[in-house]
Amino acid sequence: PYETHYSNFSNRSLRIRCLAFGLISRSVLFFSLSFCFCLLLGCSVENACFYLGLCAERTAINKAVSEGYQKFKAIAISSDLEDRVIPPCGACRQVIREFGDMPVFMTKVDGSYTMMKLEELLPLSWGAEYLKKQPL
Amino acid sequence: PYETHYSNFSNRSLRIRCLAFGLISRSVLFFSLSFCFCLLLGCSVENACFYLGLCAERTAINKAVSEGYQKFKAIAISSDLEDRVIPPCGACRQVIREFGDMPVFMTKVDGSYTMMKLEELLPLSWGAEYLKKQPL
Amino acid sequence: PYETHYSNFSNRSLRIRCLAFGLISRSVLFFSLSFCFCLLLGCSVENACFYLGLCAERTAINKAVSEGYQKFKAIAISSDLEDRVIPPCGACRQVIREFGDMPVFMTKVDGSYTMMKLEELLPLSWGAEYLKKQPL
Amino acid sequence: PYETHYSNFSNRSLRIRCLAFGLISRSVLFFSLSFCFCLLLGCSVENACFYLGLCAERTAINKAVSEGYQKFKAIAISSDLEDRVIPPCGACRQVIREFGDMPVFMTKVDGSYTMMKLEELLPLSWGAEYLKKQPL
Repeated sequence: PYETHYSNFSNRSLRIRCLAFGLISRSVLFFSLSFCFCLLLGCSVENACFYLGLCAERTAINKAVSEGYQKFKAIAISSDLEDRVIPPCGACRQVIREFGDMPVFMTKVDGSYTMMKLEELLPLSWGAEYLKKQPL
Repeated sequence: PYETHYSNFSNRSLRIRCLAFGLISRSVLFFSLSFCFCLLLGCSVENACFYLGLCAERTAINKAVSEGYQKFKAIAISSDLEDRVIPPCGACRQVIREFGDMPVFMTKVDGSYTMMKLEELLPLSWGAEYLKKQPL
Repeated sequence: PYETHYSNFSNRSLRIRCLAFGLISRSVLFFSLSFCFCLLLGCSVENACFYLGLCAERTAINKAVSEGYQKFKAIAISSDLEDRVIPPCGACRQVIREFGDMPVFMTKVDGSYTMMKLEELLPLSWGAEYLKKQPL
Repeated sequence: PYETHYSNFSNRSLRIRCLAFGLISRSVLFFSLSFCFCLLLGCSVENACFYLGLCAERTAINKAVSEGYQKFKAIAISSDLEDRVIPPCGACRQVIREFGDMPVFMTKVDGSYTMMKLEELLPLSWGAEYLKKQPL
């Protein structure tokens, strides 16, 4: 089932790649959430204050939440990298983790990919259960 | 013309208000971009690591960019505040500014609002022209 | 009194300017907090994930808090800009605002500066009083 | 050698714990960088706009950079958690990673700790080498 979504993702990611907004980044990330039969795409969004930009993965997650989705089946990240698969940054791993463990597809430009579970990418992760353990 | 969009925004913001994702915030922000005939809504998205959450305004901007929009006519922010209009935080002002000056509608829960231009909310603002002035 | 601190700031900012850590930014910001007889300096800190970097102003504020300071008399920002004074980004204005209204000195490389109050730079600003108005 | 620094860290972290600035967080993080004979401490710094706060780990890293340090021997994180060690969030892992692999000491309130290497906490991590592979 992931394969179908992944193929759909690959095709559409080519089209969204030109949407990335930025002054600097040439290594553009693309990201998809496939849940049920839905596929949502994000892109990186930069800012003249570099540090206020947002990675493609977090753009996609936040967008999905604002559309009412909070359960995701898998995530895929595409890029123009030719010689290695593209991993999410630590901040994106943390934001994905908020929505549970899920497969993360990290791809190369040729469409080949490596899949790892989020828990493998962010072992011993911080989460809401750490907050609940505190008296409020 | 803004009034029509604003009315549309007010109605839909009631529905999206329940989408806000978070552990803590009770003061939920809602946000809309009205351009042409489009109205996009965002909501705040929190994280167990508080500092990785994102305001409703930036969620909406990033979502809009990932859908191909980069020109916005106006922005409106709604909340449950009864006694004062809700202003955007400084970071959101900076991200909005990236897309040019525009009217920002800041509302109360009763639908009344104050409008200020982004340039009034963020005078003498940082922007890409500061980067261009540097030799690269 | 500000003038003395500002002069001290100008001299020391030349030395800290080489500490800025980053891959990209050539427009380095420098920042100082002068309170009582203390002068703290920050610098921008970048990251391979651009969006996880931090501006000089916020570096200085956070550093000061971790040293036990929460009351600041003034802020100064230096840069290599020759033709205009350097303003803080919106996110930094919000973080400065958390510690109250204060004078913000925005400088050029020749040491000349423009001073504006934080409230002028971030009018109608978001703050903790908006949170307190909500039932918890 | 780490043990000596760690003991020093534990003692001083008790004193810095009261510096944490915030409206909400009760689970305060503390952080130390021990390099050579230096020990730097950070604390979490919150903001009325929650998402502009900064974790203790990143506060400490940024502070250290602004003091001229870019090589760190180890990192320790303390908290009031009684039943589990406190791990860094994903964003902090990414920022630590910028400065290379290093031991991360994650502690409980009783001073016991678990040590993991940064590479174990953030496997297949994003870094500057991904940027260098792109034509600029």
